[in-house]
Amino acid sequence: MKHSLEKLAEATGAQLLGNGKVEISGIASLESATASDLVFVEAADDLGAALESPAAAVVAGEFARGVQARKPLLIARQPRLAFARAGKVIFPPRRREPGIASTAFVHDSVKMGKLVSVEPGCYIGEGTVIGDRTRIGAGGFIAPRVTLGDDCSIKAHVTIYSDTTIGNRVVVQAGAVLGSDGFGYVRDETTGVYEKFPQVGRLEIGDEVEIGANVTIDRGALDATVIGRGTKIDNQVHIGHNVRIGKHVVIAAQTGISGSSVIEDNVVIAGQVGLADHVRITEGAILGAQCGVPSNKVIRGKGMVFWGTPARPIREYLKQLAVLARLGKKERS
Amino acid sequence: MKHSLEKLAEATGAQLLGNGKVEISGIASLESATASDLVFVEAADDLGAALESPAAAVVAGEFARGVQARKPLLIARQPRLAFARAGKVIFPPRRREPGIASTAFVHDSVKMGKLVSVEPGCYIGEGTVIGDRTRIGAGGFIAPRVTLGDDCSIKAHVTIYSDTTIGNRVVVQAGAVLGSDGFGYVRDETTGVYEKFPQVGRLEIGDEVEIGANVTIDRGALDATVIGRGTKIDNQVHIGHNVRIGKHVVIAAQTGISGSSVIEDNVVIAGQVGLADHVRITEGAILGAQCGVPSNKVIRGKGMVFWGTPARPIREYLKQLAVLARLGKKERS
Amino acid sequence: MKHSLEKLAEATGAQLLGNGKVEISGIASLESATASDLVFVEAADDLGAALESPAAAVVAGEFARGVQARKPLLIARQPRLAFARAGKVIFPPRRREPGIASTAFVHDSVKMGKLVSVEPGCYIGEGTVIGDRTRIGAGGFIAPRVTLGDDCSIKAHVTIYSDTTIGNRVVVQAGAVLGSDGFGYVRDETTGVYEKFPQVGRLEIGDEVEIGANVTIDRGALDATVIGRGTKIDNQVHIGHNVRIGKHVVIAAQTGISGSSVIEDNVVIAGQVGLADHVRITEGAILGAQCGVPSNKVIRGKGMVFWGTPARPIREYLKQLAVLARLGKKERS
Repeated sequence: MKHSLEKLAEATGAQLLGNGKVEISGIASLESATASDLVFVEAADDLGAALESPAAAVVAGEFARGVQARKPLLIARQPRLAFARAGKVIFPPRRREPGIASTAFVHDSVKMGKLVSVEPGCYIGEGTVIGDRTRIGAGGFIAPRVTLGDDCSIKAHVTIYSDTTIGNRVVVQAGAVLGSDGFGYVRDETTGVYEKFPQVGRLEIGDEVEIGANVTIDRGALDATVIGRGTKIDNQVHIGHNVRIGKHVVIAAQTGISGSSVIEDNVVIAGQVGLADHVRITEGAILGAQCGVPSNKVIRGKGMVFWGTPARPIREYLKQLAVLARLGKKERS
Repeated sequence: MKHSLEKLAEATGAQLLGNGKVEISGIASLESATASDLVFVEAADDLGAALESPAAAVVAGEFARGVQARKPLLIARQPRLAFARAGKVIFPPRRREPGIASTAFVHDSVKMGKLVSVEPGCYIGEGTVIGDRTRIGAGGFIAPRVTLGDDCSIKAHVTIYSDTTIGNRVVVQAGAVLGSDGFGYVRDETTGVYEKFPQVGRLEIGDEVEIGANVTIDRGALDATVIGRGTKIDNQVHIGHNVRIGKHVVIAAQTGISGSSVIEDNVVIAGQVGLADHVRITEGAILGAQCGVPSNKVIRGKGMVFWGTPARPIREYLKQLAVLARLGKKERS
Repeated sequence: MKHSLEKLAEATGAQLLGNGKVEISGIASLESATASDLVFVEAADDLGAALESPAAAVVAGEFARGVQARKPLLIARQPRLAFARAGKVIFPPRRREPGIASTAFVHDSVKMGKLVSVEPGCYIGEGTVIGDRTRIGAGGFIAPRVTLGDDCSIKAHVTIYSDTTIGNRVVVQAGAVLGSDGFGYVRDETTGVYEKFPQVGRLEIGDEVEIGANVTIDRGALDATVIGRGTKIDNQVHIGHNVRIGKHVVIAAQTGISGSSVIEDNVVIAGQVGLADHVRITEGAILGAQCGVPSNKVIRGKGMVFWGTPARPIREYLKQLAVLARLGKKERS
């Protein structure tokens, strides 16, 4: 489908410079753009390449204003954001045809919203509630007593355990497991046997949360594990029982967060980070890739970056690495 | 369902102080307890809060004996353990109704125990044996020639490859993959092509093992991968081919254990630890989070903690970190 | 089935010394060999044990030539490789009976090759193409517009998203997710909300690639994520959007590769390695376990080993560790 630049300018809040009648049918990188594509640049240095590409039009920052351009431009304060929004107009999320596949098992008691799509092979358990326009991908397992909000997109092979509550507009990629039993055992000092600590709590996930492929999030032991609104979780992240994560937190792939840790709003966590149990990361702190935070520590500092294990302010850590490198050079091999 | 404190004292081996007729219908944390809940405390400092909470009764240690208490107490040497056992009485594992779902594929040759539950969409292959009262959650794939013991709880979407043997009372969380091909290739030095080394061994899992969500455990190449009785494995752990793990080992989330490594009994491994191939961790050693053990190393020391990469005794490592921090401070930025 | 040593010599390219009529029906390790098994040794030191084992015959290197042996020998330049090839003759990959299970959902438009096997509970979407003799294990989800080559073995519970192209002779272990949405968001600086960057690219996987259990590989954002021919990927590896991996690359378990990184041909990456975004690893470099490569770095050096975070030449890193150990010893505790 084609969209005029005028319409895209309106939809993205960008300012149109040039011919608004130009029609766009795709989005692309500079390397692969064709004559019907929209592209974007975030730096003045890249503008030339964009203008010389076959692309139909370019989203750019204020730096492009006044440039003699052969193509129409969309000027935006955040060009990447405007481009993303244009992409959503051009490629709206594919609507599944609503309906319940004949091979799905749906318990009689399930409260089904309007225009829900349940694909082949799904299981939806007793007392579960599914919101309007929500889609459950093929082979999904939704246990009893789950609540799923409106407009959720649950991809194939997702498992959601009982007593999980999920908000609206939540996206869950394939293979994620939500609400599994936490890892809690008590060792009998007499026999040496580990006995299971009850894992009878629940999991609560806020609106607009996105969860990556093969993520695992455990239910609370006695209370709840909580993921706040707008938080984005990458593939293969692990979140233990009783963890509380705030709003608009970003967690990159393969990070692990142990039981009872607290991540406040707006924290950014890079890949392969490890948080031990009962850690607190305060608002807006940034944890560098592979860093580790030992049990019971508090990491504090809005906008500050922490790195290494145990995690420390990155400036300190870089100095320590520099000293070590210098000493290493003096070392005879 | 309600249970008298008397009955819970008996079931947990704790000593009752106060009114044994008090009835309990739940377990809770101090923060969320209601008037029908049981709570527990492990330290004298927390006893006051427990007694002031709305909880009906408190499990506590010897420290609580003689305290003037407004509530009945259960006194136990290990209060957390007694509480866990009380939880098991109050919330017994949900019994699935036995039966084979009509949408499950079960090969004619499968030997099915008594009261087995096979949920919708399962596949159970030729020659497989399922023990009494074992439950296979929705969408489970159990390959040919698998043996599953009695009273196992296999959650949704678990994959068990052929020639896997699983003991009694084993719990497997959703998405785990047991018995997959190991990562073994031989490079043809002439062509540069990696050819697959045969992965035709098997996987043996002992009684009372628990396996977390999205765990992967590879079969042996020629012999067996072995997981000993009572061992507990957290989410997203990876265990390579030919690994031998002893009894009552605890392995936290996202740890990886490479081929042919040996973990002796009672070892404790924290999260995100990496063991290279042919490593040995001797009885009762403790590996700190994110530490790494290089190929062929032996880590020895019952009750000793190791940390860092390469893993060394934690005291040594902490000294090294302290030196580094001091030198870093002297460094000009 | 039994195979004469003569025949195995021919199939593996090894040179037969001794009685070629001896029949072999299995392969084994030295520890578990029985009288009908073939074993192998790579070092002269192990030859004695092999000859004393009950095995029927031994694959060995040139070092075994001229040894007075009680058993027939197969002499090969790469004994492990010859043994692997013999294993393939003795245990040929189990052929599934071709056919489409009645409980599988296959869209009318799917182009199905010859002798394809689609097991129970699979979903195969609109416009997808499946090559000859390819097998889709139970519960597989193959989205619309996927192309799968000939002779692929897709194990149970694999998810393949739309617009994924997979070559010939590709093996995918259970639970892997191929072509999921990448982790790309743009933060609206005004509202603080993360909006999704379009993830509308595709995934291309070359011939003879093998992919481990519970691996996740994201599709490109605008272009493609690419995995080159012959590359082998272990369990729980994560590969982000737009990553380009060359030919004959080996990636061990739990490694994570962030968006837009490039791995050239013949690179070897050990377990739990982390590559940040926009990294380049040039041809033939070797990354040690758990090492980390920060954003935008280039790691260069054919056959060179790198270790630590940030990754540096291993010789440098070992010196640094040695200095640190020495200084730590002087430190008062």
